[in-house]
Amino acid sequence: MKDCIFCKILKGEVPSTKLYEDKQTYAFLDLNPVAKGHSLVIPKKHYETMDEMDEDTANAVIKTTQKIGKAILKLNEGYNVNQNNKSAGGQLVPHVHYHVIPRNEGDHLKFTWDKLDLSKEDFENIKEKIQNLL
Amino acid sequence: MKDCIFCKILKGEVPSTKLYEDKQTYAFLDLNPVAKGHSLVIPKKHYETMDEMDEDTANAVIKTTQKIGKAILKLNEGYNVNQNNKSAGGQLVPHVHYHVIPRNEGDHLKFTWDKLDLSKEDFENIKEKIQNLL
Repeated sequence: MKDCIFCKILKGEVPSTKLYEDKQTYAFLDLNPVAKGHSLVIPKKHYETMDEMDEDTANAVIKTTQKIGKAILKLNEGYNVNQNNKSAGGQLVPHVHYHVIPRNEGDHLKFTWDKLDLSKEDFENIKEKIQNLL
Repeated sequence: MKDCIFCKILKGEVPSTKLYEDKQTYAFLDLNPVAKGHSLVIPKKHYETMDEMDEDTANAVIKTTQKIGKAILKLNEGYNVNQNNKSAGGQLVPHVHYHVIPRNEGDHLKFTWDKLDLSKEDFENIKEKIQNLL
């Protein structure tokens, strides 16, 4: 897609530190890493959000994410796979990308997990709303 | 797996608010939600980390995650898919699970993305380390 920085990386028009490539996916080091080895896995086909990917593409993407995750786990104590959809979700590049982030005890990374206090009714209402859309 | 809370949920020994189920996967509302609609997608087969999943299971899990993500996107402005591996990565239940978290502009959720300042050499060194393990 024109003007998509990841499509430009795939075409070689913008440089990247490639880790792995196959027919459908490409993995490279994030230019703005939050940890050493912070990687991105993207499909070669341009999709904006993860729910839009066709089955073949989605399967290829999870396979490559597993490959990168497995390697990162050999070098670190853990890792996160984070994937953001839409700008409200913190997605900066509108081309599906999976962050694979190395983690180690005591590192500075943190996700604010402030819990909501929901009633049993809230749970049921939310369930119905989502189920109606599945 | 004995003593795994998610395996107990799958067996019906522990209650959960089910959203969706198929042969290989199960989706339900997180009991400690950080947003209304915070869901979890898990494989029925017990695996600890995402890189361990067999191909069939991994494909089924991403398909269900897409299904839940698509529904959540109809109700919200965006969503995150977060998957933590090992306790250093913030994994509390050692049974692979994908968080699907509804996001909206101005919500309180935040991931601290403190960037590292790495040199070109750092990038090359990291790349080599990872590629040697792929």
